Amino acid sequence: MEFTVKFSPIGKRVMENRPRVLLDMARQAGVGLKSLCGGKGKCGKCKVVVNPANGVTAIERKLLTQDEIAEGYRLACCTSVKENTEVYTPASSITEEQKLQIAGKDVEVKPLPPVRKFHLVLPKATLSDLRPDLQRIKERLNRKYKVKVKNMDIKVLNIIGPTLRDSDWSITVIVRGNEIIGVEPGNRTKESFGIAIDLGTTKIAFYLVDLLTGAPINICGITNPQTAYGEDILSRIHYAGSTRTNLKKLKSEVLKGINLAIKKICRESRVEREDILEATLVGNTAMHHIFLGLPVKQLGLAPFTMATNEPLEIKAREVGLEICCGGYLYLPPLIAGFVGSDHLAMLIASEIETEEGNLITIDIGTNTEIALKTKGRIISCSCASGPAFEGAHIKHGMRAATGAIERVNINSKSLSVKVSTIDDKSPVGICGSGILDAISEMLRVGIIDSSGKMNSGYKGVRRIRGGKSLQFLLAKEGRREITVTQQDVSEIQLAKGAIRTGIEILLEETGLKVHDIDGVIVAGAFGTYIDPLKAVRIGMFPEIDIGKFTQVGNAAGIGAKAILVSKKFREEANQLVKKVEYLELATHSDFFEHFTSAMRFPKIK
Amino acid sequence: MEFTVKFSPIGKRVMENRPRVLLDMARQAGVGLKSLCGGKGKCGKCKVVVNPANGVTAIERKLLTQDEIAEGYRLACCTSVKENTEVYTPASSITEEQKLQIAGKDVEVKPLPPVRKFHLVLPKATLSDLRPDLQRIKERLNRKYKVKVKNMDIKVLNIIGPTLRDSDWSITVIVRGNEIIGVEPGNRTKESFGIAIDLGTTKIAFYLVDLLTGAPINICGITNPQTAYGEDILSRIHYAGSTRTNLKKLKSEVLKGINLAIKKICRESRVEREDILEATLVGNTAMHHIFLGLPVKQLGLAPFTMATNEPLEIKAREVGLEICCGGYLYLPPLIAGFVGSDHLAMLIASEIETEEGNLITIDIGTNTEIALKTKGRIISCSCASGPAFEGAHIKHGMRAATGAIERVNINSKSLSVKVSTIDDKSPVGICGSGILDAISEMLRVGIIDSSGKMNSGYKGVRRIRGGKSLQFLLAKEGRREITVTQQDVSEIQLAKGAIRTGIEILLEETGLKVHDIDGVIVAGAFGTYIDPLKAVRIGMFPEIDIGKFTQVGNAAGIGAKAILVSKKFREEANQLVKKVEYLELATHSDFFEHFTSAMRFPKIK
Repeated sequence: MEFTVKFSPIGKRVMENRPRVLLDMARQAGVGLKSLCGGKGKCGKCKVVVNPANGVTAIERKLLTQDEIAEGYRLACCTSVKENTEVYTPASSITEEQKLQIAGKDVEVKPLPPVRKFHLVLPKATLSDLRPDLQRIKERLNRKYKVKVKNMDIKVLNIIGPTLRDSDWSITVIVRGNEIIGVEPGNRTKESFGIAIDLGTTKIAFYLVDLLTGAPINICGITNPQTAYGEDILSRIHYAGSTRTNLKKLKSEVLKGINLAIKKICRESRVEREDILEATLVGNTAMHHIFLGLPVKQLGLAPFTMATNEPLEIKAREVGLEICCGGYLYLPPLIAGFVGSDHLAMLIASEIETEEGNLITIDIGTNTEIALKTKGRIISCSCASGPAFEGAHIKHGMRAATGAIERVNINSKSLSVKVSTIDDKSPVGICGSGILDAISEMLRVGIIDSSGKMNSGYKGVRRIRGGKSLQFLLAKEGRREITVTQQDVSEIQLAKGAIRTGIEILLEETGLKVHDIDGVIVAGAFGTYIDPLKAVRIGMFPEIDIGKFTQVGNAAGIGAKAILVSKKFREEANQLVKKVEYLELATHSDFFEHFTSAMRFPKIK
Repeated sequence: MEFTVKFSPIGKRVMENRPRVLLDMARQAGVGLKSLCGGKGKCGKCKVVVNPANGVTAIERKLLTQDEIAEGYRLACCTSVKENTEVYTPASSITEEQKLQIAGKDVEVKPLPPVRKFHLVLPKATLSDLRPDLQRIKERLNRKYKVKVKNMDIKVLNIIGPTLRDSDWSITVIVRGNEIIGVEPGNRTKESFGIAIDLGTTKIAFYLVDLLTGAPINICGITNPQTAYGEDILSRIHYAGSTRTNLKKLKSEVLKGINLAIKKICRESRVEREDILEATLVGNTAMHHIFLGLPVKQLGLAPFTMATNEPLEIKAREVGLEICCGGYLYLPPLIAGFVGSDHLAMLIASEIETEEGNLITIDIGTNTEIALKTKGRIISCSCASGPAFEGAHIKHGMRAATGAIERVNINSKSLSVKVSTIDDKSPVGICGSGILDAISEMLRVGIIDSSGKMNSGYKGVRRIRGGKSLQFLLAKEGRREITVTQQDVSEIQLAKGAIRTGIEILLEETGLKVHDIDGVIVAGAFGTYIDPLKAVRIGMFPEIDIGKFTQVGNAAGIGAKAILVSKKFREEANQLVKKVEYLELATHSDFFEHFTSAMRFPKIK
């Protein structure tokens, strides 16, 4: 009898009609589970939560903690399934490669690119056919493909003559709207690529896509080089807004980084940079403005006025972006001074408009954007959650890189701490999901109370040398100690408090209660790696049934990709932006009241 | 009783009701006659031909030759007029300043510029009015002036925020079509200028114009810096067509020259370069293509195919032209591989389409373009007349500069030669009109025969040292002799033969005879300075009644100015170009027959 195994939160399904080992089924579904030992029951990396839960094997008893077994954790290599089953794959069990590509919901995009290539074989110019080159091309395009063009990029006009004559009058013409943006010798219609860029305050993600099929070719990510000039948006605005030179510097830094990344992704994918015919870029308003060289001083002062919020189509070379010479960069519209096109792209990717019910989307980043959709309204706000979840302002904080503590378990009786690190290397610091886990566990076992105060009576809690403040020891490697300090707890309280405040004010604004919420979509790199249970436990999210959470990965990037590949999605974004209502939190009358309460931790029941 | 004095070929009129000295009337009419002595009857520079002719004064007998008096020449300072009179002002009597501005026919241009400035005072952004800067501007433009714009230049978007905030929200917006191409603080609507550029093979002329009134502000001319890389079009094409680097070099040389000239004309006219909102450029096809960086190799080989002949609107900065940052360069359409937009502009300026009768227009330059209009047809051709009339390839040839012989008279009996030079300085060489005069006079007195052969029996004719070839002495200054050589005569025969061939083939093509021609419009700097009588005498022009000739100065420049100032003229040019039939002379079956015959001089009656 046939049965289905569903992998959540990735949202992949496999149909099967005989008992099979979960690890194999995950491979078949394209879910990249970690498995250092190759499925031999030795590494204990392929942890999943199986529902309904199976019996426990001897190997599992050895490699899993008692708490884990009680919570339903099993090893995918030791578990056979023979009925309808739901398998929860924690982020820590997913391979790095998979993490980058993670996307709970795949948006179906039928390619309708704004750029098309046409192959033409033209009659040669003779004394009885004196038509200029451009006219010759235009007339053929119209006759053969019913495509009417008006303009030709001046730089393309520069090469049209030799291209025609060197290729025996067989050329490929690149058309965008009513403009010819490129000509190439021979037939190169198949080489049509685009690049979608998600320009975050901290990270920049690149998606190289085949424009003809919409298929992803490659993905890569870099750290925003502007980070050296300020970690959060406000410090970036302050720096860029103080002098024209500073703005130019930030612009050129990010541009240099982006151009290098494009060069690299092309080389790795064996794609010519000149075959990238179109680019899209999404980002928060400050990143968008700085990238274009727009003044941002005004974004740092009330009323936080944007230079423009309109969708922009700019010759890529006009802003220094290195793709095909005549190619364009498309920037979807912005929503407000602190809610940019990344949020819009995320709303597009999560299909919030067409989904039923009352939905919340949360894109956690240095700035966290939250939208609430209910009865045809979409209200968005922005919370300055800061870079703490990216490891900044945390004593032993670090990026999600090798050696970062990403999971923490504290035994509630012995108070012994078990950490797991990225790539299973010796711990060198704590990344975002690690600090969230640590604080959630510290709260659970009572090391901190609901005010966030650390309790000195617990094992592992000690004074910071030369100070009065307390810290809790997570791991010790030789003489290096990795701790969570009282100050770290406060930073996380500020961050999660900001997010929770946004959610609360949105609920208040719409008159909805927590139990009215039908779904929560969590996006962003950090949002994808966290355990929603623990986020609820520390009060970052309200107490919403854990089954209502979906983790969708970099939805802004997925949206940027859809907007890149399809004119329909551009139109959709342009329509959607008009519907989104912006709620300014900073000037909201109840802000401080909510914020004060949201910084506290929930009482442990 | 009122009477009219008409100054030809400049085409200015003065109404008067009492007898007055001609020199004063010329001043009143704005005709710049030379007068070194200030009208005291001493310098003899203000020679004019008066019709009906006056009696001759004693001063005139002293300062004019008998031949001149017989031909009707008088001095404007010695001649009083009291009835309707026609005054012919030879180019040699016109001041330099006037020469540059000379225009037989002023085209009436009602300004309808493609660029307009609007002054806006905007409401400040507040927390209750969060509109982005661009939206705020767009909405105000629409509400106050009913002007709808769509796009904004990205570089302008970069300065909009600070401009608004530094100028207390009072700004001037520059609009072109549906694009905002500039913003400035305060009200600067009056500062609206444009520049028309006539890019010739040898000379480049600049016309700075007030876009609001159409009034000329300033004019200047420079030598095309590309001249160093080849004097005529074909050598320029050969150079630019051989490598991409050469093309770039020619492009950058001419661009550098043009940008410097614009800077200079602005400084001289106290106009900010940023206030030049639009530019137009006309030129022959090769100059047009090289300026834009378009490949020209194909222009040098049959079938001489243009990259494009369409009118182009390009961001000036895209081609390196330094005007207002967001401003555009407009290039009217081209006619054929060797008939460019300068010819079209000339046709526009001469209003050939609306004039009655069978008309010929001749724009003499390194390449000479000729058009014949008859019964609704306009047929154009191009003759490779070469740079001889610009002083090149002539032994003692030079540009029309100080010390250049510009007029030559040979006494038919004594064979004594009288020359006049530009600025009345010692002769240092011969310019175009001087060589034309010299050969015409040599022909008249029999020094050369109709085959062009120099006759050794005449006074002043001698062998070139160390050679067999003959030369004729025009002037001697110390040890420096200025002569016309047999080779010079041949060069002029080639040049005038090319022009005459063009005229003859056009007549043949239309079945017209010489006596059917109702008017000849001669344009171009050289064409303005020559004496049409002498051009007819050497057979450059057919024997057409001298009264039918009009010399219109730089008509291409006048046309470029009209196209700059008025969208109506752009549309007119776009319509006219469709009507012009192009006749390829080089492949015309009767070319060589006509050319052989046209190189001979007419027999002197």
